[in-house]
Amino acid sequence: MSATAVDAQTRRRLDPDARRAQLVQAGLELIKERPFDQVGAAEVARAVGVTKGLVFHYFPSNRDLQVEIARAAAKELVAQLHTDPALPNDQRLAIGLEAFIEYIERNPESYVAVARGAGANDRLLEVYEECRRDIVGLIFDALGQSDPSPALRIGMRGWIAGVEEAVIQWLDGRPIPREELVDLLRRAGLALLEATVPQG
Amino acid sequence: MSATAVDAQTRRRLDPDARRAQLVQAGLELIKERPFDQVGAAEVARAVGVTKGLVFHYFPSNRDLQVEIARAAAKELVAQLHTDPALPNDQRLAIGLEAFIEYIERNPESYVAVARGAGANDRLLEVYEECRRDIVGLIFDALGQSDPSPALRIGMRGWIAGVEEAVIQWLDGRPIPREELVDLLRRAGLALLEATVPQG
Repeated sequence: MSATAVDAQTRRRLDPDARRAQLVQAGLELIKERPFDQVGAAEVARAVGVTKGLVFHYFPSNRDLQVEIARAAAKELVAQLHTDPALPNDQRLAIGLEAFIEYIERNPESYVAVARGAGANDRLLEVYEECRRDIVGLIFDALGQSDPSPALRIGMRGWIAGVEEAVIQWLDGRPIPREELVDLLRRAGLALLEATVPQG
Repeated sequence: MSATAVDAQTRRRLDPDARRAQLVQAGLELIKERPFDQVGAAEVARAVGVTKGLVFHYFPSNRDLQVEIARAAAKELVAQLHTDPALPNDQRLAIGLEAFIEYIERNPESYVAVARGAGANDRLLEVYEECRRDIVGLIFDALGQSDPSPALRIGMRGWIAGVEEAVIQWLDGRPIPREELVDLLRRAGLALLEATVPQG
């Protein structure tokens, strides 16, 4: 959308759903430029060109707004992780991992802020959990596992948590090339798949 | 220590360090019987037979006391994880994992409460981080890696986070035998070691 189109849309009276979506979208863009916890109603209002009061009309508190921004970011992240079903699983794992890391690298501060802060807030924790569930769901789809075994579920949940922590550690100075990080996380994932998915 | 000995010790005037240690130790026993977040100065005072005021003299707030109890639990956990250096690495990984899971199984509620709540509190997060660092340090010692490569450090930090999450997921209904859980986590760990430690 061009800047002019955004301006025109801002001035128009939007229906409530469109306005909410516009505010969340503005917040989503902002957390790519600055840390997540520094984006609230004031910043979103300024970016969209509306009053802070209007933002608070749709999101009663900064926390409500932040939870929805985090949810939008999680959806955007998960949308990047789809891979070509024609490729073998180890390649899909590598491609998905690369996309995951690339997304986080665009604003590491926001990711670390959400990851480390989620425990402090039940609703943020819920978004975080949803995101993990969605990613694990994608992996099950890719594996053609519509009814994954408990071992596979537990293994993949553990793997995702391990990936998140490894990426957070890696972001601190990026001491190895990204490909090396992808390779070691992929190998751990494959070992878990070998241990939990009946090979055929 | 017999009950009589404890009584005698309680009534004696203890020097400050001994008193602090006694209160923390009592808290450590309590969190094995009830969830971590339900243990505070009142419960510790009752268990030791002193006034709540005395507990608050040593620990200005419930949170201060809880942080020290969590630290004592982390130390106790790490102490269980030492394995026989004469054994091969895959066996040591399996034995260490079994000890880790066994410790947590003694009071899963407390473990989950600390793990999920740590993000909410900087000092609890610090204890949690220390615990992860200590466990990773043990693994480096076991591998004879006094100066671990960044890849090995990142891989093992990820692995520990994955183990924690997998165990938390597993505790919800324990849908697979503990040995199966140990086996799949061990395999992921070995894959990471193969990817990050020069084989010789």
